Amino acid sequence: MSILSGVIGIYSKNRKDASQMAYYGLYALQHRGQASTGIAVNNNGFVDYHKGLGLVNEVFSRDAIDRLIGNIAIGHIRYASHRENKGLSIAEPLAVGYKKGALALSMDGSIVNAKELRDKLEDSGVIFQSNLDSEVIANLIARHHRNGLEDAVIKAIDEIKGSYSIVIMSSDKLIGVRDPYGLKPLALGSIKDGYIMASETCAFDTIGAEFIRDIEPGEMVAIDERGVTTVRLKSANKSHCLFEYIYLARPDSRMDGRSVYRARIEAGRQLYRESPVEGDIVIGAPDSGIVSAIGYAEESKIPYREGLIKNRYVGRTFIEPTQEQREQGVRIKLNALKENINNKRVILVDDSIVRGTTIKRIIEILRKAGAKEVHVRISSPPVTKPCYLGVDTPREDNLMAHNMSVEEIRKSIGADSLCYLSLEGLIKAAGGENEFCTGCFTGKYPV
Amino acid sequence: MSILSGVIGIYSKNRKDASQMAYYGLYALQHRGQASTGIAVNNNGFVDYHKGLGLVNEVFSRDAIDRLIGNIAIGHIRYASHRENKGLSIAEPLAVGYKKGALALSMDGSIVNAKELRDKLEDSGVIFQSNLDSEVIANLIARHHRNGLEDAVIKAIDEIKGSYSIVIMSSDKLIGVRDPYGLKPLALGSIKDGYIMASETCAFDTIGAEFIRDIEPGEMVAIDERGVTTVRLKSANKSHCLFEYIYLARPDSRMDGRSVYRARIEAGRQLYRESPVEGDIVIGAPDSGIVSAIGYAEESKIPYREGLIKNRYVGRTFIEPTQEQREQGVRIKLNALKENINNKRVILVDDSIVRGTTIKRIIEILRKAGAKEVHVRISSPPVTKPCYLGVDTPREDNLMAHNMSVEEIRKSIGADSLCYLSLEGLIKAAGGENEFCTGCFTGKYPV
Amino acid sequence: MSILSGVIGIYSKNRKDASQMAYYGLYALQHRGQASTGIAVNNNGFVDYHKGLGLVNEVFSRDAIDRLIGNIAIGHIRYASHRENKGLSIAEPLAVGYKKGALALSMDGSIVNAKELRDKLEDSGVIFQSNLDSEVIANLIARHHRNGLEDAVIKAIDEIKGSYSIVIMSSDKLIGVRDPYGLKPLALGSIKDGYIMASETCAFDTIGAEFIRDIEPGEMVAIDERGVTTVRLKSANKSHCLFEYIYLARPDSRMDGRSVYRARIEAGRQLYRESPVEGDIVIGAPDSGIVSAIGYAEESKIPYREGLIKNRYVGRTFIEPTQEQREQGVRIKLNALKENINNKRVILVDDSIVRGTTIKRIIEILRKAGAKEVHVRISSPPVTKPCYLGVDTPREDNLMAHNMSVEEIRKSIGADSLCYLSLEGLIKAAGGENEFCTGCFTGKYPV
Amino acid sequence: MSILSGVIGIYSKNRKDASQMAYYGLYALQHRGQASTGIAVNNNGFVDYHKGLGLVNEVFSRDAIDRLIGNIAIGHIRYASHRENKGLSIAEPLAVGYKKGALALSMDGSIVNAKELRDKLEDSGVIFQSNLDSEVIANLIARHHRNGLEDAVIKAIDEIKGSYSIVIMSSDKLIGVRDPYGLKPLALGSIKDGYIMASETCAFDTIGAEFIRDIEPGEMVAIDERGVTTVRLKSANKSHCLFEYIYLARPDSRMDGRSVYRARIEAGRQLYRESPVEGDIVIGAPDSGIVSAIGYAEESKIPYREGLIKNRYVGRTFIEPTQEQREQGVRIKLNALKENINNKRVILVDDSIVRGTTIKRIIEILRKAGAKEVHVRISSPPVTKPCYLGVDTPREDNLMAHNMSVEEIRKSIGADSLCYLSLEGLIKAAGGENEFCTGCFTGKYPV
Repeated sequence: MSILSGVIGIYSKNRKDASQMAYYGLYALQHRGQASTGIAVNNNGFVDYHKGLGLVNEVFSRDAIDRLIGNIAIGHIRYASHRENKGLSIAEPLAVGYKKGALALSMDGSIVNAKELRDKLEDSGVIFQSNLDSEVIANLIARHHRNGLEDAVIKAIDEIKGSYSIVIMSSDKLIGVRDPYGLKPLALGSIKDGYIMASETCAFDTIGAEFIRDIEPGEMVAIDERGVTTVRLKSANKSHCLFEYIYLARPDSRMDGRSVYRARIEAGRQLYRESPVEGDIVIGAPDSGIVSAIGYAEESKIPYREGLIKNRYVGRTFIEPTQEQREQGVRIKLNALKENINNKRVILVDDSIVRGTTIKRIIEILRKAGAKEVHVRISSPPVTKPCYLGVDTPREDNLMAHNMSVEEIRKSIGADSLCYLSLEGLIKAAGGENEFCTGCFTGKYPV
Repeated sequence: MSILSGVIGIYSKNRKDASQMAYYGLYALQHRGQASTGIAVNNNGFVDYHKGLGLVNEVFSRDAIDRLIGNIAIGHIRYASHRENKGLSIAEPLAVGYKKGALALSMDGSIVNAKELRDKLEDSGVIFQSNLDSEVIANLIARHHRNGLEDAVIKAIDEIKGSYSIVIMSSDKLIGVRDPYGLKPLALGSIKDGYIMASETCAFDTIGAEFIRDIEPGEMVAIDERGVTTVRLKSANKSHCLFEYIYLARPDSRMDGRSVYRARIEAGRQLYRESPVEGDIVIGAPDSGIVSAIGYAEESKIPYREGLIKNRYVGRTFIEPTQEQREQGVRIKLNALKENINNKRVILVDDSIVRGTTIKRIIEILRKAGAKEVHVRISSPPVTKPCYLGVDTPREDNLMAHNMSVEEIRKSIGADSLCYLSLEGLIKAAGGENEFCTGCFTGKYPV
Repeated sequence: MSILSGVIGIYSKNRKDASQMAYYGLYALQHRGQASTGIAVNNNGFVDYHKGLGLVNEVFSRDAIDRLIGNIAIGHIRYASHRENKGLSIAEPLAVGYKKGALALSMDGSIVNAKELRDKLEDSGVIFQSNLDSEVIANLIARHHRNGLEDAVIKAIDEIKGSYSIVIMSSDKLIGVRDPYGLKPLALGSIKDGYIMASETCAFDTIGAEFIRDIEPGEMVAIDERGVTTVRLKSANKSHCLFEYIYLARPDSRMDGRSVYRARIEAGRQLYRESPVEGDIVIGAPDSGIVSAIGYAEESKIPYREGLIKNRYVGRTFIEPTQEQREQGVRIKLNALKENINNKRVILVDDSIVRGTTIKRIIEILRKAGAKEVHVRISSPPVTKPCYLGVDTPREDNLMAHNMSVEEIRKSIGADSLCYLSLEGLIKAAGGENEFCTGCFTGKYPV
Repeated sequence: MSILSGVIGIYSKNRKDASQMAYYGLYALQHRGQASTGIAVNNNGFVDYHKGLGLVNEVFSRDAIDRLIGNIAIGHIRYASHRENKGLSIAEPLAVGYKKGALALSMDGSIVNAKELRDKLEDSGVIFQSNLDSEVIANLIARHHRNGLEDAVIKAIDEIKGSYSIVIMSSDKLIGVRDPYGLKPLALGSIKDGYIMASETCAFDTIGAEFIRDIEPGEMVAIDERGVTTVRLKSANKSHCLFEYIYLARPDSRMDGRSVYRARIEAGRQLYRESPVEGDIVIGAPDSGIVSAIGYAEESKIPYREGLIKNRYVGRTFIEPTQEQREQGVRIKLNALKENINNKRVILVDDSIVRGTTIKRIIEILRKAGAKEVHVRISSPPVTKPCYLGVDTPREDNLMAHNMSVEEIRKSIGADSLCYLSLEGLIKAAGGENEFCTGCFTGKYPV
């Protein structure tokens, strides 16, 4: 099972509220997934946990949090995929007992040789209770238990291939591992009396933690009462995921030395430099196109405006309108700000086009609100290939840019013009070179 | 009970899904209140209803909506006040039986002579089952039932004083009334095969309705199978509520001929003209300061940036951090975008200062994120007086500007400078003259 | 709206847990209805309440109970009728404000002139928010408010006709009234530091209260800090409801000087004397036929056995089997105890036959379990007439004994023999003469 | 983890509603546990399941049942133990994937060498996600997967020791196994188009299945599209659990050729023969003492009466009374039927005394209701030893009869006399000899 997640780990020497720190931190990672969440803590040699389907504030009641007492905690957030089982077994952390005691794991990423590892394990009589890659890893760790947890983790990591940031806890230790390419993010911070690891630094700000550094690609960091130890496990060319900068990460996070917000502003500026167009206003597709739209507006000197209002109250129990109602114009989630759109040449900036359904509907709404022209500018290159490394993009067939030329896409979504940012432009905006995975744009994957 | 609400009414000749139209419309009005909501429909001479405490998507399940079948519906949204009973009896519509059959009412506003009317009614033996002004009005209507519903409404309206937009339905009629001053908004639109009334026009866009016109101050509009009739009940000087433009209404709504978005942009521009300041970036306090911040940035040519990220996932079941956690910096709802703030002179635009607690916390967050200077600009004048007319402002004691000078406020909130927009500037931005209630700024109330 | 309910009232001088006493008492009355329940308490001049649809333990959480602080409380339990609106508006107590302050009412019974009183009240401009008879009575009390609450209740009671036990509370007083015929039960007890009133004495036992006496037909008892006062309002021939003894009341309750359990045992004994039959075992239809079956067995010397096991876990969210499953024998609620039934001549005792559907199914189950013969004995006469006085019997058309002779009923339900207890026999078993309403057996109603 | 459970398995050739059959069957087994329940079905090579904490009607919604489509299903019910983890991981069936595909298990019983097996498995690198014995067994089966499921089950069973009835399903097969001693019950029945296995035959009656036979001690029954095959795995002396007859099983079940109801009646009769006493009435402690009380009454010719009314509505969300309220006599669950108790010499029959707290409270209630004498008769011998074989009796320290003589117990519970049924008498009543486990009475365990 290969999909986006968020992970967090807390180690405190003396505090007993590690689960609460994890709880608040998970709030900051909620944008990485709304399907399931969970927290595990150490508790007198055991590992207690609470997990469930839904948002952090749906899964955790005060009672549930209060029950989780310990000085070490790990947490997890998972994105909902259309391809996956929706049962409770998708929720992490995965807590298990093994020869040396209790263990819990949470992981963001995708093990590409999971099937082979499962087959091998099943040959030797192993049972699996889920489709989680975490369960494969837990089994590998348990197989290598003889020389202690760090050694077991090192040996398990040696067998897996893919993208991953993993946090692991035992009753007295917190361990974080990042894949050799740095495909998945993981940062280290300090809290009063301890440490924190998280997928994104915005989780640090949320609980008042100080950023120390990114965990290096291929690095294992282990924290226990003796302090922090670090081991470089594997080495490979850096291949950070570009989609984190474009879309996935929260704009107030920093990753591998870069500000996500700045990358998006720069992508917008660069997008104007590459693909200028005349217009009356620049608007962003809510919410992920907003920052690049501000960048595009600044570079172009064309005024930035809000063009679409998103209804923040449309929850998951929302009752879908009927086809007839839809035809009569019922649309709850987005509304055009007519004042800004009517009779204007609108430049619409979005972060990416995947299936193309959303942008098509947005353009319809803008036309209906009186837009004279709609010029679409995308702050990333066309997504022509699926991701096998932990981002939930659809199969090739469903990728608009896999099946159509840019001109065909333009026609299909009803835009007056359509331009994408070049790959070079994007890499420049993200501020690096030879440091990114470009698989979904080029088909060249690091793994 | 005098607090903010949103109302909606649907009349369709032949469709049976009036409740669904109301349901989708209420989503668009959800920003006007999250305490309670409800919908009533006509149903073969009866009035069925469903109401409850919470958000639209919490109160209404598919079953609840499907049960409400009829061609006429009214709906209601209520804001939560710290002063009020939180029981189910605050939910509207109020559905009652009286001599002529079934009746349901929803109201936004405040009847200032409610106490006197209640006393008089109680003298004659009336019982009350709630604190709702709607119950007073329903009793008045029932008292005057002899010559039909319109006549009864006219006589009831004649007895009440205050701010109000009321929608009323019987088994075959939809009626809307707006107070003589136009303090509260109410607009009329058309749907396929019928009509809609709503507090804000954004509800029209949501269900694909066309805006016809604002209902006039002091006007009653009645709709039944013979069509639309209109009566001018009372006449008074227009006194539209300025807070609707500053804060309450959704930016994509139009009210009494004005765009709310434009009013806010203009207030921002005017604010710069009146109170310019040097700075590196302009940011808005999320969410209500954003639009004016964009206006301020445009007029000043200082770049607009997002300075604070609001966590959209912090729901109502959120578990409050302990005092100790707070001191260690746990803050879930807002995070500074350090990239934009650090080492910058920040101009922070907000719509108003009421109690002053939020802006104080925001300034702390900005300082901690490295802001060199924080200049606060408020796109409305100081709120020195409470509102008796249906906006949920606190009592005088709790109004920061009632108790302090601007300089004292500046010190208290920790800003480097603080300026408010002048009342003239605000009125100019809103685009009218002698048309607004300025009670909360001046103490001069129209009623 | 005329259906079975249970009422309770608590008055304590100094204790603040009157709502908890009411809560525990309502548990003991739960057999009188599962549709809705509620409790009201006085609270510094106000009346707070909590009510809802469902069982006592579904409607009341600890928080809800803890919020209801006061020294006076009333509570209510309502039966679910197939004829009634199932919305929240059926829940009592009804709490209202009127000229003299706060008032709450709960009632068991049926006002037969409710329609006339409503019409008259509506003529004068009254609105109604429910179909509750309680709302009519509250209006009548409010009309007569001038000389204090007792006076107002007396005047209101003077206008109503029907069967009723009513408990009323204001902020400093608890009042109980019983109809002139004593159709509905209401008893008075003492608690530490105060008093209790309840529909049945089993509620007294539950909270450790001592039984004082039954409230007399036509009596009003008022309790406040000065003590207990009593007024005889109206006088009429006693007409206690026989169905309370046969079916409605809990066997451990005493009513008007009689033990319900003993009445049922005696009805079973008398039934054997009137209609003996040879058989191998006597069984009761669970649960209401059990006690009379024990009586029948004793008198006849035929062994009493349990013949049917009732599944106590089949709750209200139970998923009904499909028609096909039913045909294959899926039956969850009752199972025959084959050991006792197979190859036996079974005497089946039940309290009454109303629609006849349940007994028919029971006989089928017994036959399938191998019963050689099934002789049905009913411990009450045929129910040939509906009840207009507060028992939820169906309309005449649906009363089996209204439409069929005893022999026709026997055939229809598939019994080998069928006998009913005579009216004289029942009255003798209940231990009185000229003291009962026999309306449902004879069509002669006291009102 | 060693506690009482109920299991069910359904195999149908062509029907797709196996999960529904299991659902209705679980209702009939609900008395075996209220802590958790679940159902697994085969579904195109996969195993789907739904499980949760609580009662059958709490865990399963219509949606949950409708989602579980297949022709094979197994289900499980678990008792709540004070010693166990209350998390979701206690719920069965346990569904796993292994080399040969999908597998689900449910088990009633206790593996006494579970710790050794776990240790051995952990040595070889196995992880455990629960404390369930089922997880140990699933691992053993997976280890032996090479020659097909039956062979794997046989080899797994060969390694375990203890009491157990296990139902196992793969995507095309249903298997049931009973321990060599027959400690735990398991019966085989037929349904239209297939078969059923269940802990008790009352589950057969509930879904209209026909009883075929008990599965033999040490027998494995496997059902697939080729029909039923049976293998005798191990042989040992029969040692059926006597507590099933005394207390655990539903009275309408038959086990190993005996009627549970008859065993209880006979125990009551024998109890009188062994320990007669003079008295006015015989009553049973609800619910498990009722049947033996009827037997005692019959043999003694002393009238049987209901002496205590149990409130069926006191659910699990019940709010406990405070100490003060308790002292004032608040007691919700049981009420004495004063009519029957007052001034009487009461013979109280119960099935067993374990901790002694309940019977002590019952005697208090009877005294308060006016009982002149209370003679306690117990329809089983003193429980002096804990059960290691799957019945949730407490540790020795908490067993009243481990610590006290009969006379001491009598004093402690406040009875006028106290007698237990002899072990011989109980065995005679249960109708067998040398066929029962008497561990809890004698400390001689078969395993």
